[in-house]
Amino acid sequence: MYRINDNYQKLPGSYLFSTIAKKVSAFTAENPDKTVIRLGIGDVTQPLTGPVIDALHKAVDEMAAGETFHGYAPDLGYAFLREAIAENDFRMRGCGISADEIFVSDGAKCDSGNIQELFAVDSRIAVCDPVYPVYVDSNVMAGRTGSYDPASGRWSDVIYMPCTEGNGFVAELPSRRPDIIYLCFPNNPTGAAIKKEQLQKWVDYANKEGCVIIYDAAYEAYISEQDVPHSIYECEGAKACAIEIRSFSKNAGFTGLRLGYTVVPKELTSGGASLRDMWARRHGTKYNGAPYIVQRAGEACYTPEGKESIRSLVAYYMENARTIRDGLKEMGYTVYGGVNSPYIWLKTIDGMSSWEFFDYLLNQANVVGTPGSGFGPSGEGFFRLTAFGTHENSKAALERIAGI
Amino acid sequence: MYRINDNYQKLPGSYLFSTIAKKVSAFTAENPDKTVIRLGIGDVTQPLTGPVIDALHKAVDEMAAGETFHGYAPDLGYAFLREAIAENDFRMRGCGISADEIFVSDGAKCDSGNIQELFAVDSRIAVCDPVYPVYVDSNVMAGRTGSYDPASGRWSDVIYMPCTEGNGFVAELPSRRPDIIYLCFPNNPTGAAIKKEQLQKWVDYANKEGCVIIYDAAYEAYISEQDVPHSIYECEGAKACAIEIRSFSKNAGFTGLRLGYTVVPKELTSGGASLRDMWARRHGTKYNGAPYIVQRAGEACYTPEGKESIRSLVAYYMENARTIRDGLKEMGYTVYGGVNSPYIWLKTIDGMSSWEFFDYLLNQANVVGTPGSGFGPSGEGFFRLTAFGTHENSKAALERIAGI
Repeated sequence: MYRINDNYQKLPGSYLFSTIAKKVSAFTAENPDKTVIRLGIGDVTQPLTGPVIDALHKAVDEMAAGETFHGYAPDLGYAFLREAIAENDFRMRGCGISADEIFVSDGAKCDSGNIQELFAVDSRIAVCDPVYPVYVDSNVMAGRTGSYDPASGRWSDVIYMPCTEGNGFVAELPSRRPDIIYLCFPNNPTGAAIKKEQLQKWVDYANKEGCVIIYDAAYEAYISEQDVPHSIYECEGAKACAIEIRSFSKNAGFTGLRLGYTVVPKELTSGGASLRDMWARRHGTKYNGAPYIVQRAGEACYTPEGKESIRSLVAYYMENARTIRDGLKEMGYTVYGGVNSPYIWLKTIDGMSSWEFFDYLLNQANVVGTPGSGFGPSGEGFFRLTAFGTHENSKAALERIAGI
Repeated sequence: MYRINDNYQKLPGSYLFSTIAKKVSAFTAENPDKTVIRLGIGDVTQPLTGPVIDALHKAVDEMAAGETFHGYAPDLGYAFLREAIAENDFRMRGCGISADEIFVSDGAKCDSGNIQELFAVDSRIAVCDPVYPVYVDSNVMAGRTGSYDPASGRWSDVIYMPCTEGNGFVAELPSRRPDIIYLCFPNNPTGAAIKKEQLQKWVDYANKEGCVIIYDAAYEAYISEQDVPHSIYECEGAKACAIEIRSFSKNAGFTGLRLGYTVVPKELTSGGASLRDMWARRHGTKYNGAPYIVQRAGEACYTPEGKESIRSLVAYYMENARTIRDGLKEMGYTVYGGVNSPYIWLKTIDGMSSWEFFDYLLNQANVVGTPGSGFGPSGEGFFRLTAFGTHENSKAALERIAGI
């Protein structure tokens, strides 16, 4: 009999957001009269902007005529989009990233799940705790994490780097040397940002110790403070040690359109092998490009009108962040995040666990958030709310929470 | 220093179609006055059909308003599409496949590259020879194929099942038991189809020997003969041993739109583990769904107008297949395929190798095809032409070949 990849069997329970969805479904089935406000999963609510919609319609029309029809896209993405990315997201910030180091994809989640394939199966990973579940789960599936201890909620072979109130939710350098370091700033779930001089320390550490950094910058557009880097390539030496993952989901509202990209610099080599060439080979073999019409929509985000529409969209959500942050503070909650990030990270009250607080909020206020412990053991006692709702829902959620 | 997945280093040369693209680029750079006709890579040329274009515009409009905007899609795909697939592609053919056994994705290439992740790393794979390169290459990357012998063009740990003129390009059952069997019918590259009683033998063998079949049915729409099954689930017992992969690329022209799906029946279990649940977990962790607008485009393929438009599209390409097939026969070529498939598989002439014939056709006729040896050692001496060009180009290519 053929055998399965039994690493899958090691995964405890189902994916965090699936569990939440099931709990909410059960609640709404039992309480058909209640309206639930969802500030749990980080999905956006505002429609695509005018420039993006126009670009989509135009590209659809192109697909309707033989002369302008587009079949298979180039493996790495269309040059028009990769050039726009290189120019606007990197060169304009002083980072020398070229178009052929950029790989367009159908989203940051896929890339952050797939990137581990490039590394040896016995590589040691280090993750922040709490952390976006995909980094760990994709490594579990690949057999890199050892055994799971339900008591601690930790894997034997993973290096956890606690992010706590004590360190401002920015992990300290690990005491044991990892091979692969996952960093996400602005952070999901804590909403913390990292200053340039802090990030430079990670880059220096990685170069000194021979580590690779997977830098998830999906929330870059939410940075509002001056000394916070938008790209890891703003740090000296980062091109020799870091891969950066970006998304159009949270800045331009593409969660349902699917577009992201990954930067693998040519300087990134290990034992003579170019990681850029490996990722290109993976794209060529196991991927077939993002849809032409969606790549045109991505391009539209870089025109003057597109940039302005993204600024408005980000400002809309950041007003929600302020509403939630300030409202919770007034109620006496201890609140973090929401300044350079669309996530608000709050401490639960009355000694409740994260899941107890989830049930409390769902049952008492009919508001859905995400339990901090779902992101890792150090998230216990915390809770994540997102700013991606409408103004109305964000305000209503706050009123409901104030009323319980 | 971190180490890479050195299985990547074992891959000989670059991906077949990348190599062809580079050769064609070099030729056109040296011969700017020559017009090259591309019948190499299996990319379509006809525009998207009216019902699909209408569905895309409508869905784009929905994305422009808050009330009808769609964010993250359900992990497995929207129910409207999965229901349409289950009804039209399976129930109407007497196959009891339900919507929750269907996983919508961004294409058959991704699915056929990723599906191997579900199986143990020491699983033994069997592939037809010649074969679509993705099946083997994705297993090379995962470390399942042993070492490569450049002389034979074969991997030490892969079971090759030759498809030759002698067996009508339908492989015989392997003499050694594999764990995973890749089958593709109608076949890429040979254009061969399999009759139901032949396929039933494979299903019976897999169930008896405890193998899983990965059945790639991307070219199903091109079947024109009666006794050729459109789905492996037309065979008795297939739900206990087979995964089927389908595509919207070749029937509806979605190569640039990206949509496919994979069927993982609930009956498919190994050691108590459900492969359907494992694939669902993979989708939940490493994938984020096909774009809403593209899923609506897929749904439009199942309306009466959509079905009619696909029939016309397929008929258009099959006229090319006839043109090429009949034309080559008249010239004295030995030709296979092109009856239940958009691929024409021809024997090279004058003892030329497949790559010699590629250069001969490119240089003498400025026509691009695909060398049979690029699909595996048993493809040596053969050459693939596709029917996916325009009528004009298909005819012109034939005239050019006749003229050399």
